[in-house]
Amino acid sequence: MTVTAPHPTESPSSPLVVDTRRHLLAVGDLDRDQIVELLDLTDTFVEVGRRAIPKVPALRGRTVVSLFFEDSTRTRLSFDTAAKRLSADTMSFAVSSSSVNKGESVRDTIETIEAMGIDAVIVRHRSSGVPAQIARWTNAVVVNAGDGWHQHPTQALLDAYTARSHLGDLAGRHIAIVGDVKHSRVARSNIEMFSALGARVTLVAPPTLLPPDTGAWDVQVSHRLDPVLPEVDICYLLRMQNERMTEALVPTLREYTADYGLTSERADLLGPDALIMHPGPMNRGVEIASEVADRPNAVITEQVANGVAVRMAVLFMLLGPGRHLAQLPEEAP
Amino acid sequence: MTVTAPHPTESPSSPLVVDTRRHLLAVGDLDRDQIVELLDLTDTFVEVGRRAIPKVPALRGRTVVSLFFEDSTRTRLSFDTAAKRLSADTMSFAVSSSSVNKGESVRDTIETIEAMGIDAVIVRHRSSGVPAQIARWTNAVVVNAGDGWHQHPTQALLDAYTARSHLGDLAGRHIAIVGDVKHSRVARSNIEMFSALGARVTLVAPPTLLPPDTGAWDVQVSHRLDPVLPEVDICYLLRMQNERMTEALVPTLREYTADYGLTSERADLLGPDALIMHPGPMNRGVEIASEVADRPNAVITEQVANGVAVRMAVLFMLLGPGRHLAQLPEEAP
Amino acid sequence: MTVTAPHPTESPSSPLVVDTRRHLLAVGDLDRDQIVELLDLTDTFVEVGRRAIPKVPALRGRTVVSLFFEDSTRTRLSFDTAAKRLSADTMSFAVSSSSVNKGESVRDTIETIEAMGIDAVIVRHRSSGVPAQIARWTNAVVVNAGDGWHQHPTQALLDAYTARSHLGDLAGRHIAIVGDVKHSRVARSNIEMFSALGARVTLVAPPTLLPPDTGAWDVQVSHRLDPVLPEVDICYLLRMQNERMTEALVPTLREYTADYGLTSERADLLGPDALIMHPGPMNRGVEIASEVADRPNAVITEQVANGVAVRMAVLFMLLGPGRHLAQLPEEAP
Repeated sequence: MTVTAPHPTESPSSPLVVDTRRHLLAVGDLDRDQIVELLDLTDTFVEVGRRAIPKVPALRGRTVVSLFFEDSTRTRLSFDTAAKRLSADTMSFAVSSSSVNKGESVRDTIETIEAMGIDAVIVRHRSSGVPAQIARWTNAVVVNAGDGWHQHPTQALLDAYTARSHLGDLAGRHIAIVGDVKHSRVARSNIEMFSALGARVTLVAPPTLLPPDTGAWDVQVSHRLDPVLPEVDICYLLRMQNERMTEALVPTLREYTADYGLTSERADLLGPDALIMHPGPMNRGVEIASEVADRPNAVITEQVANGVAVRMAVLFMLLGPGRHLAQLPEEAP
Repeated sequence: MTVTAPHPTESPSSPLVVDTRRHLLAVGDLDRDQIVELLDLTDTFVEVGRRAIPKVPALRGRTVVSLFFEDSTRTRLSFDTAAKRLSADTMSFAVSSSSVNKGESVRDTIETIEAMGIDAVIVRHRSSGVPAQIARWTNAVVVNAGDGWHQHPTQALLDAYTARSHLGDLAGRHIAIVGDVKHSRVARSNIEMFSALGARVTLVAPPTLLPPDTGAWDVQVSHRLDPVLPEVDICYLLRMQNERMTEALVPTLREYTADYGLTSERADLLGPDALIMHPGPMNRGVEIASEVADRPNAVITEQVANGVAVRMAVLFMLLGPGRHLAQLPEEAP
Repeated sequence: MTVTAPHPTESPSSPLVVDTRRHLLAVGDLDRDQIVELLDLTDTFVEVGRRAIPKVPALRGRTVVSLFFEDSTRTRLSFDTAAKRLSADTMSFAVSSSSVNKGESVRDTIETIEAMGIDAVIVRHRSSGVPAQIARWTNAVVVNAGDGWHQHPTQALLDAYTARSHLGDLAGRHIAIVGDVKHSRVARSNIEMFSALGARVTLVAPPTLLPPDTGAWDVQVSHRLDPVLPEVDICYLLRMQNERMTEALVPTLREYTADYGLTSERADLLGPDALIMHPGPMNRGVEIASEVADRPNAVITEQVANGVAVRMAVLFMLLGPGRHLAQLPEEAP
């Protein structure tokens, strides 16, 4: 995804978007400038979302299909809302209601969808690499909406956007990512995202919830949360899954909470301007105390809200007609 | 929901809608004037439904989400059709395909939906009070589409609209509500609705299918149907559920039909202008004979048809921009 | 469905569409002229599909509901895409998420849908004759999207369109339909379709996969594929279902492939211009070798692509306002 930043002084005929790459599969596909351009474009769509009629006709006639092999209310609705606000037609099918069950291969499904003239496929799958594989099979745009433990790039973009809206430039900032890093695509995408933006990342988790290869990342690691909290600008909590307990990776959820949960006492260790973030859905009382989730510096609901605008920016970049933003008029009431 | 009735002679600048309350949770929230205003507004949307292009742009850019924790084809499609005819964007998720299954609480689901900028949530849930609880958690408009045995206010509105269209003012009319009153949200909403409009209600059911607290309602009770039928203007039949038999509340469906079913013989006891109503889906041969369901004075299909217009009126009242109806132009063909 | 062909020289006031029949239930309902008119109209919608904004406002304000009692990704998405490109509103419900499960009869479901003002119902059902039965119950337009072993008329139309686009007039052409004819609605519809267009059909299958009544059809039958291949213009492969093996109708899939699969060696027996067709989803390696499915003369993806345009033509014919195609303007960008 190569983009040219929209610039207030550029002439009306200069291109906004140059598509040399056509998919969004992983944060690592984006360099720092591209990330910043996407975040800047998101500002525009946040503004669109505040209009009386929060729609633009940018993708009218385009069709966006959600192909979710794994369930997710919030991500699916967020992409769907984004596409509709861009005036795209949307369709979705969960795998349980599709012929994929009947032995149709993923590849033939994709080729079928593409043959119908669909422009973009939003893919979620429990296996790493499926969106990339699909991108090799199709001319439609592919956006990775989460694949296995691998990547969730729009989550990282919305997290970066939310952080930037409070903290400004993230260069030199310090982010703690707390919890089950091992099984988390959100962690992997955010390590790359925050690093690309010049921030410093500390992973906080018990050894059983860290992957063996953290040495390959430009991160620090701590097995204790308390000493890290006073030093960070962002405490980013990961969702704890019940299955980690049955896998004996944590002894009990209660012990996990005692050691790594952001309790009220621990949240008080944070600096006054530090942000508390979570990708949702939260397990209140496990990785985050319910009271902490509702504090003013917990920006979890903002993350959700910004997700729509970030996804509008991504879809506009990948599918848009190369129009100038100045050509996104207010809808007539 | 406080409304000012649209009046043919009112000046163009006077307000149509004043929203002092923002949800529709129960019939009891509405006073008689508000009900009449909603029914009058429904007339307008019945007329819209007869146009060549039965749409108005009133809710363009608004997003309406159906959140159905309990299945219902007809209610979900009816709200969806209503929202689309108002040009709103619609999304729906059944609970089985949502992360509510994964332990996400209803509250966090609602906050997520709201954060995405969704304007209204249509809620159906098997437990009484869930829509009201949701309304406390969100700034989005909440419409109760049926909660447990408690309320189903749009059903009562469409029933009142249908009755009024045949009988005129319902003051002084007599309505029999027949069947499983105990477990029926439709019965509870209609008792309040018809009473508010000045009609007299007689409940007809065996003691096992009546709640213990009928004395608190301004109704009469009869355990026999035959003597009631010649006296009523409306015979409103409730759906009989198979589980009532397994719960031993009725001996057999055959015996229920023998005592309380509207057979052909019984239907002949009704006055010539009396209406036969049913909220659907019917159990033909149980609470209503198939032949009776197809008689000219059975207005069951009209109830369904009016349901779309009533729900357009409700959504317009709660979400509309305060426009005058005179500003709802014909769509260009 | 009686239509008057659009003709480049017809005067602006002459009618394009004359609806004397209102449903599309079976290929046999169409005479040759009507089929040709539908295929000609499909040309127009193929062109619409190539526009920058591939939409026309022809069915704005119309509502099309997909009523799929049996799962099918590709057919449902294809109809949905077609309806959206005609600017219709679309709704769908799979049976598992509908009250049909709760004992609501199909008839009452249909009457409910119709009462809501829905204009067309796209029906798929595992039992033959359900769409025709539904058409007797409703004033809405009914399109058969596949019923049991009986018919799948839009599949046959898209197959004929695809064949005609490569071979021109199909009169005198020779088509082999290979595989499980007995259990195939696609075979039944295509036998009628190709016969109506003057082509010759040879069925190729083991006796266990042929119905007892092939003598009633104007077809030839062969139990061997190899001698047929050099003679045909189209080799149309049917999908092999695993259950045929458990029913002992074929010994093993491997033996089926050995005798009737279009392997690479067999595909080389086809003439240089002969087409390979399949209704999808394919079982690569069973009825068709994976390499063969990707050959240039395998037009399986084109079939899918043409399906959208054919279904636009069908919906336009059945629901359209009798407008001239000249009145289908480009959408403003």
